[in-house]
Amino acid sequence: MTTYTAINLIKRPQAGPISAELFEVIQKEIPTAGPGEILIKQNHMSLDPAMFGWMSPDRESYIPPVELGSVMRSSGIGEVVESNHPDFQVGDRVMGLIGWTEYAISNGTGMNKVEAPLPDEAVLSIFALPGLTATQGLFNVGKPKQGETLIVTGAAGSVGSLVGQLAKADGLNVIGVVGTDEKADWIINELGFDGAINYKSNNLAEQLAKLAPKGIDLYFENTGGPIQNLIFERMNAHGRVVVCGMIADYSKAVPSPGPNWIPVIKKRLTIQGFTMPDHFAEVPSLLAKLTPYVMSGKIKHRSHILEGLESAIEGLNLFFTGENKGKLIVKL
Amino acid sequence: MTTYTAINLIKRPQAGPISAELFEVIQKEIPTAGPGEILIKQNHMSLDPAMFGWMSPDRESYIPPVELGSVMRSSGIGEVVESNHPDFQVGDRVMGLIGWTEYAISNGTGMNKVEAPLPDEAVLSIFALPGLTATQGLFNVGKPKQGETLIVTGAAGSVGSLVGQLAKADGLNVIGVVGTDEKADWIINELGFDGAINYKSNNLAEQLAKLAPKGIDLYFENTGGPIQNLIFERMNAHGRVVVCGMIADYSKAVPSPGPNWIPVIKKRLTIQGFTMPDHFAEVPSLLAKLTPYVMSGKIKHRSHILEGLESAIEGLNLFFTGENKGKLIVKL
Repeated sequence: MTTYTAINLIKRPQAGPISAELFEVIQKEIPTAGPGEILIKQNHMSLDPAMFGWMSPDRESYIPPVELGSVMRSSGIGEVVESNHPDFQVGDRVMGLIGWTEYAISNGTGMNKVEAPLPDEAVLSIFALPGLTATQGLFNVGKPKQGETLIVTGAAGSVGSLVGQLAKADGLNVIGVVGTDEKADWIINELGFDGAINYKSNNLAEQLAKLAPKGIDLYFENTGGPIQNLIFERMNAHGRVVVCGMIADYSKAVPSPGPNWIPVIKKRLTIQGFTMPDHFAEVPSLLAKLTPYVMSGKIKHRSHILEGLESAIEGLNLFFTGENKGKLIVKL
Repeated sequence: MTTYTAINLIKRPQAGPISAELFEVIQKEIPTAGPGEILIKQNHMSLDPAMFGWMSPDRESYIPPVELGSVMRSSGIGEVVESNHPDFQVGDRVMGLIGWTEYAISNGTGMNKVEAPLPDEAVLSIFALPGLTATQGLFNVGKPKQGETLIVTGAAGSVGSLVGQLAKADGLNVIGVVGTDEKADWIINELGFDGAINYKSNNLAEQLAKLAPKGIDLYFENTGGPIQNLIFERMNAHGRVVVCGMIADYSKAVPSPGPNWIPVIKKRLTIQGFTMPDHFAEVPSLLAKLTPYVMSGKIKHRSHILEGLESAIEGLNLFFTGENKGKLIVKL
């Protein structure tokens, strides 16, 4: 085989589901590594909600959007198959922003060798963007304290499942909000959450009151959606809201309104957003914080594997429907 | 005269304006100071938006509500007319939570002598709750930086007028939101704000864009109301929102919704509420921060004086209508 497949972004998304028209699937000649370069054959690539930001033209966003006509951005793990770079050998396993492509040329910038004895799926599910995001958001923004009550939305998702397990390991009472009963079972029985709420069920306020009788101290928001107001009403004085994702609103033409700010005063709340690109310099300390939890066996994960590069396009819509079970990963 | 007037709170407020039925005006015998006590004759008392919180039964609020049947809470300045307390002499000028009453007995707790050579109105307008609130909210919560753009709502009010002047003195570009053209003139021509917007005028988004062409870094919220969303849309990356008051929503049965949180992520915003009772221990350091600005002549104020204790009841509604011009003070 002398050609490979790549996918370019050619249109910006509008409201509604992601359609195939936004992308162009192309075949190209496999290139040769030039001086100082490596050729990477990608094996697994990660799909993340952050991609909706990367596709959008919003100049005020936290990272420049993908240029139209360029390969769609994504992180992944591959193998070095040619190297003219002193730091990389053929056979090295590397992780970085490889993009939606089977092969990529790199000068090594932003490519990190993966030496942990873990399969690609585990590395992408725990030590890549999800784990960094969960660690930064929970510990550095949310400042959890033993005995507090934490609620996390998207609790069976790649970030939410880690947030809940990390908080549980630190002695918090942990409630997860999910979209199916199967996910509710999983986060309670496999991940050890104290409680779960299916946001599609009834009597959400009553369920919240039962699971958080002393109120909520820390609210880790991955989704938005109608349960947001109910959670917000149960916040305790000096509560913190960590705003990490709003997946329920990304595809809407007009996002839903948020809660009124009177409780922000009465309860002296802090609502704080963050994104990882601001914190890439802190990755070593974040990994140092996260690793002991993983190594002591306190962090479980599951991956939802899609087959083939082109499955990425339709795969993005699983974030909107919530039909994914675990971290979305494309196997090439 | 051997009797005096006091006003008790006898009902909790509902949605809508404050009515006289919430209060009971009573006549009592002027008491005599017992052992360790002082008798205070109040001269000026302060009306503050915080009173709506003090009247409300919400247990999650930051300070216990006034008990029904008790004298309504307020801060004020009076003169010691009898003293059996070693720290106070007849003739001393004292400030504290004297309440809606012409005379009060105190054991001295929470009463501070006022020695500054300033009239009561100036002390209540600058060094009492408004100045402490402005100083805490602007400097300790908002963390202003020279060259940034600040917008403050309720900009002609007791807190907002101080916030804007303090920020201006520190080299920020300062925009105030007010409810009349007269107030707009005052904050620009007397207080030195860089710009003003009358929220009752048209083309608010265009006015904002013109006054804050580089966006808004710091948003000091005293009012809420429909302009909130427009301001929020113009926030810059890493912007801070200090939530101090929501007067436009306090009297509504159902408060208006707030902004969607997608910009909280994209722009990594922090929205933080605060109230002064959490920070009473810091009052000395707040006064130390505030005093040099006042002494160097950078802080102007104006008072709106109401005559007689009973004027306080209807006076509270001036916060909702915005018809007050300056700090509301009742002269006894």
